[in-house]
Amino acid sequence: MDSIASFAALSDHLKSLNCRKRIVVANAVDSHTLDAIIRAVEMGIAEAYLIGDVASIESPRLFENRPSPHIHVVDVPDVRDAAIESVRMVRKGEADVLMKGLVNTDVLLKAVLDKKNGLLPPGNILSFCGALEIPRYHKLLFFSDPAVIPSPSVEQRIMMIKYSIRTAQKFGITQPKIALIHATEKSNPKIQYMQDYAEIMKKWRMGEFGDVIIDGPLDIFLAVDKERGSIKNVATPVLGDSDILIFPSFESANPFYKGLMCFAGAEMGGILQGTSKPVVLTSRSESIDSKFYSIAMACALS
Amino acid sequence: MDSIASFAALSDHLKSLNCRKRIVVANAVDSHTLDAIIRAVEMGIAEAYLIGDVASIESPRLFENRPSPHIHVVDVPDVRDAAIESVRMVRKGEADVLMKGLVNTDVLLKAVLDKKNGLLPPGNILSFCGALEIPRYHKLLFFSDPAVIPSPSVEQRIMMIKYSIRTAQKFGITQPKIALIHATEKSNPKIQYMQDYAEIMKKWRMGEFGDVIIDGPLDIFLAVDKERGSIKNVATPVLGDSDILIFPSFESANPFYKGLMCFAGAEMGGILQGTSKPVVLTSRSESIDSKFYSIAMACALS
Repeated sequence: MDSIASFAALSDHLKSLNCRKRIVVANAVDSHTLDAIIRAVEMGIAEAYLIGDVASIESPRLFENRPSPHIHVVDVPDVRDAAIESVRMVRKGEADVLMKGLVNTDVLLKAVLDKKNGLLPPGNILSFCGALEIPRYHKLLFFSDPAVIPSPSVEQRIMMIKYSIRTAQKFGITQPKIALIHATEKSNPKIQYMQDYAEIMKKWRMGEFGDVIIDGPLDIFLAVDKERGSIKNVATPVLGDSDILIFPSFESANPFYKGLMCFAGAEMGGILQGTSKPVVLTSRSESIDSKFYSIAMACALS
Repeated sequence: MDSIASFAALSDHLKSLNCRKRIVVANAVDSHTLDAIIRAVEMGIAEAYLIGDVASIESPRLFENRPSPHIHVVDVPDVRDAAIESVRMVRKGEADVLMKGLVNTDVLLKAVLDKKNGLLPPGNILSFCGALEIPRYHKLLFFSDPAVIPSPSVEQRIMMIKYSIRTAQKFGITQPKIALIHATEKSNPKIQYMQDYAEIMKKWRMGEFGDVIIDGPLDIFLAVDKERGSIKNVATPVLGDSDILIFPSFESANPFYKGLMCFAGAEMGGILQGTSKPVVLTSRSESIDSKFYSIAMACALS
């Protein structure tokens, strides 16, 4: 398989599999979520299970057209119950992907994180992996974590890296290049995460992460811009060609991707990592495109 | 005066003043620094004093052409001595702006921070203010701090904000709008800088910052993107129209601006703030344009 370098290539890949992934959506009543789901169903890549309060459905389109045989609606008027039932379906193998509809994140995460009936295997952590398609970059750029863990411990960083590697590999990237992001390439022992980076580099050299290339600390120029990076005269095997950026904190990752969405025409998909099955946790304000890319990403990973 | 919304407008403004600012450069021997200085001299906005090791000058252009009467070269072969002499000239009022040439940052900063003979008034802090010109943004976007203070205290944040306000005002922005950046608009008491933000908002309401608008925590969408920000339905007086972004840490500010330079066609100028006169501290890898914008910014502030 060629590596998937864009969201269009991701859609093509999923279509070529000729297999519908079963997506359960907790309270899919808002129109952006419904439109994104309908697109995935019409593309032939998804079978949708909409669990929620049917009376509040915003998108008349769903029922105006002849109802698709690949969209199944289950009326569960209480949002909390809908979240629990959605998680149960994924846990029991009745669905491949969980997606958040119009539910408070707290409510859905409570069901996902439930020790007995949730989706997080013991010892795993929950984090977020985004994939950015930036017009001026030559491939998808995966990154973690802009949303879940404010300031990860070294153990959490290591797991975030392993999850992100698995994601990149599912996109056909045989030897992902990973940059540990900082403001410069110079290590500063006074900064806590520098010790984490040193530890990660040591483990990488000992083979802990498998067939990948990791380097850091690196700044953004060295990580993703061959021209600007070269001027710095720093030898790094990822120079301008990173597949994955690991940020020191979510205060660092979040403005980075949002700036690129506002000003560089970037599009983003993203999923929760660490769970037994992919979880799509988009926010109400996200575009239909963005929600669709997240669904597609989850389908590729399930 | 109209507010200065681009680097072209900044050049026009400086030309209209019809006054050369005196810039002393510590060891201006590398060609990017020299080319940027020559551009400022030829534009009629700068009188240059090049203090350093004449034998190592890289740019033959300086001497090939008829030497400009506005470029003064003083041979100080030892780089450390050149740094000290440059700082002395600014301190004594013999120059308006200090600029770094081919000197290690540590060496120049040591001279700048010297308690007896330096440029930092007692009680002031050193920080960095950048100005970004982003093709898809409608004005210059000032931000702090991507380079100097890794993780500021609340007192340092307050001073960074005051310095940045003064900078924006020098650009003719009568009532600057300032966003305190975070991953979301939701406050999270577990994160240290949230308490700082609350304190800053309190002081702003009490009038401590003068005629400005401050809001935070805000994410990048709310701060600089009216469309994406509006979808979030959060009431904020800076919505999509920030003049200044204050980042929680340099690990947060640095990837933001570098991402925009790589992928959004952004150009940047920047200066050190807190010193008695503006200090231009660009790195060797920066473009001539970028160095020129920093010089122009310093001239506007001196």
